[in-house]
Amino acid sequence: MKRKVIAILFLFIAVSFSAKAQTDAEMLAEIHKTALTKGKSYVWLEHLCNNIGSRLSGSLNAEKAVQYTYEQMRLLELDSVYLQEVPVPKWERGAPEEAYYKAGNKKVKVPICALGMSVATPKNGLTAQVVEVQSIEELEKRGAALKGKIVFFNRPMNPEFVETFRAYGACVDQRSSGAREAAKYGAVGVIVRSMTLHADDFPHTGQTGYGDLPENQRIPAAAISTNAADRLSLELKLNPNLEFFFKQSCKQYPDVLSANVVGEIRGTVYPDEIIVVGGHLDSWDLGTGAHDDGAGCVQSIEVLHLLKKIGYKPQRTIRAVMFMNEENGVRGGLAYEKYSNQRGENHIFALESDLGGFSPRGFSFVCDDANFEQIRSWQSLFEPYLIHRFVKGFSGVDIGPLKSEKIVKAGLQPDSQRYFDHHHAANDTFEHVHKRELVLGAAAMTSLIYLIDKYGIK
Amino acid sequence: MKRKVIAILFLFIAVSFSAKAQTDAEMLAEIHKTALTKGKSYVWLEHLCNNIGSRLSGSLNAEKAVQYTYEQMRLLELDSVYLQEVPVPKWERGAPEEAYYKAGNKKVKVPICALGMSVATPKNGLTAQVVEVQSIEELEKRGAALKGKIVFFNRPMNPEFVETFRAYGACVDQRSSGAREAAKYGAVGVIVRSMTLHADDFPHTGQTGYGDLPENQRIPAAAISTNAADRLSLELKLNPNLEFFFKQSCKQYPDVLSANVVGEIRGTVYPDEIIVVGGHLDSWDLGTGAHDDGAGCVQSIEVLHLLKKIGYKPQRTIRAVMFMNEENGVRGGLAYEKYSNQRGENHIFALESDLGGFSPRGFSFVCDDANFEQIRSWQSLFEPYLIHRFVKGFSGVDIGPLKSEKIVKAGLQPDSQRYFDHHHAANDTFEHVHKRELVLGAAAMTSLIYLIDKYGIK
Repeated sequence: MKRKVIAILFLFIAVSFSAKAQTDAEMLAEIHKTALTKGKSYVWLEHLCNNIGSRLSGSLNAEKAVQYTYEQMRLLELDSVYLQEVPVPKWERGAPEEAYYKAGNKKVKVPICALGMSVATPKNGLTAQVVEVQSIEELEKRGAALKGKIVFFNRPMNPEFVETFRAYGACVDQRSSGAREAAKYGAVGVIVRSMTLHADDFPHTGQTGYGDLPENQRIPAAAISTNAADRLSLELKLNPNLEFFFKQSCKQYPDVLSANVVGEIRGTVYPDEIIVVGGHLDSWDLGTGAHDDGAGCVQSIEVLHLLKKIGYKPQRTIRAVMFMNEENGVRGGLAYEKYSNQRGENHIFALESDLGGFSPRGFSFVCDDANFEQIRSWQSLFEPYLIHRFVKGFSGVDIGPLKSEKIVKAGLQPDSQRYFDHHHAANDTFEHVHKRELVLGAAAMTSLIYLIDKYGIK
Repeated sequence: MKRKVIAILFLFIAVSFSAKAQTDAEMLAEIHKTALTKGKSYVWLEHLCNNIGSRLSGSLNAEKAVQYTYEQMRLLELDSVYLQEVPVPKWERGAPEEAYYKAGNKKVKVPICALGMSVATPKNGLTAQVVEVQSIEELEKRGAALKGKIVFFNRPMNPEFVETFRAYGACVDQRSSGAREAAKYGAVGVIVRSMTLHADDFPHTGQTGYGDLPENQRIPAAAISTNAADRLSLELKLNPNLEFFFKQSCKQYPDVLSANVVGEIRGTVYPDEIIVVGGHLDSWDLGTGAHDDGAGCVQSIEVLHLLKKIGYKPQRTIRAVMFMNEENGVRGGLAYEKYSNQRGENHIFALESDLGGFSPRGFSFVCDDANFEQIRSWQSLFEPYLIHRFVKGFSGVDIGPLKSEKIVKAGLQPDSQRYFDHHHAANDTFEHVHKRELVLGAAAMTSLIYLIDKYGIK
């Protein structure tokens, strides 16, 4: 009898305990509490930004970051940590850029930076008159008037959009294909207003592409700060013949070998169903890639760290990937898909964090209605953590190439107001990331992954 | 026939136009667009913080701020702008505080500031042994051991709360009544761990109260930075007999006369139904009162500015109030209620912004169920602006005293993660306020007031 009582008691305790451990609301509370008190992402990010620094693909720093995140994931005692070889483009900025023009007797210096993947100017720089345009469409209208000129793309990001990414999306064509299009009209160079809503003196870089334009037709492209763009526009009204000088010595080298860094916890029940979470390890070379996208990387590692810390054994395989080369090639994302395809892997869920380490507001999903309905049924679980927004939309650049028969993709959506103040500029640095905002993002990601792991996808 | 056609056409145009103007979704879009492109709150805040500075009640700067906001509201051509006399306490910090202790041979300087309304130490400072406690409750347990000692309240804000204001609320009793309670046990001074979740070197001030403790029993109280508190706690473990020195020369003066600043647009249909929106103009003296609460003041003026700018004629009277003396007396809030009561005014809605100028997340309401239901029915109108949170809860300190037969009170709820990094400290300064976050808060407030004006309360 005594034994029976003890056995029942044990059973009762076991059931209570497991019932307790299995309540979703309690799991999310545990995840958030652990993140806010024992999260490591902020310390990892500090190392990535302040001890390593900027991490442009093909640079020594990028390789240091590969090594560092590999080592940190090893320390988490995951089931496996490995590198995936990725050939990446290697572009270097070279000597600091210079730019100025004359306004009357005065030489006005212009904060400028070469756009990523741009060609150099002639060795001694380039001087030409400037034609200001607001859009690529306007080039055709200007036609022959562009020949021998520097085209100045000056359409600002629209402040009316509440979500700054929409303003960016409506503007970035000037940077990404302005040079290619202007070259077709005989322009000799392109300068672009920096993609930020902030009025300041930072030039913001970012990729420009020449498409299939022959090499000898490629023209140098650079970004100038928003303050400089506003002033130049006014000066051009006073003096339409103003001559602009800029010099940049950037250079494209042959591809070099780099890597994606992968760490995973193997699923206990469905190990072949893979859940992937990631950010990109490379960054532009001007800042130290804190928000873009050191934040997403350390948050992704944090997901695994938190799951381990709370002792959760996932049913499915959960994998964190530090993708290489999002900024100027997406080679890491493409390679990950290729390897995954070769191995016949089945991804059911992919989550990317690449919109900054700010207060998390929600997620956007690429999925069918049945899955969206299931995800929305979890929405109230997130409300105590002020995660309110579950919408369909963009997921992430690196997980973009991923194909599986059935896959749900998602992107973390942090508050976007401050993001473009720092994006691709010298001030994308560690001190602009807030510890609690960063770990709350990681906690939200972990919570979503826990739910996907538990319930699977439709 | 022709006339009839023209008349119908005109009617059609008029109806279309008025229908357009009256769509709530369109009104909120117009409000937000106008705020993001023509908002003035950021410029007003810059002046308040950078040209005027800190605005402690009774100070010259507080009077400059009264004058400045009065003038700015006059420029908006409101229906009336006036001052309400408010007698306020006048407390001055005096010479910069000093504090140190000896750790072995080493003199450790401690970043310290007197708590607001504290008495001074003796002229040459105060030296005593330190007893560290975690709570006011612990004082009783320590009893006689506190006699002649400095009590060191060191309970940190709990990082597990997602909303930082909850962590503050669970901690602030140490600051607000620690000195009063410790004095009862014969303690000679109190030092308090700063109320922030951030580990840094800023001491954070804030009011302490002695209640009805006789003047000769009042003991000096000060805050030390979180880094200093952590170190002192460790040093005390090594040397429990450590002697702590601090010196402060703060002084309480007789009350002086100050003012609330009031501006209003008179209602076209129900002028006697008053909607009030406000923040507090006074600030602590260490920073420049940017988030606390310059932000709330300029947002409140912005509400009137935006309504004028879009040409909206409110049915009810809409009034912006810059309350004086929230920080150490709430005299402005009490005076406003008194005047309002004397005039027999009927307030139907009061909204306060005093939780910082960060990205708006929602509102909390003090109201009955019928009104809360009506307000929640508007929730989807706010979703495009990422305002998701409509909860019952705290409204605001300054509107707290306001009584009317039927009144709905509300508080703007911005993102709270960064707030206590700056609260009552030297780094509560203009450069930590983000322009778009500030004006989005003002737009959310304007939107809510527009809806309350249009539909009234239940």
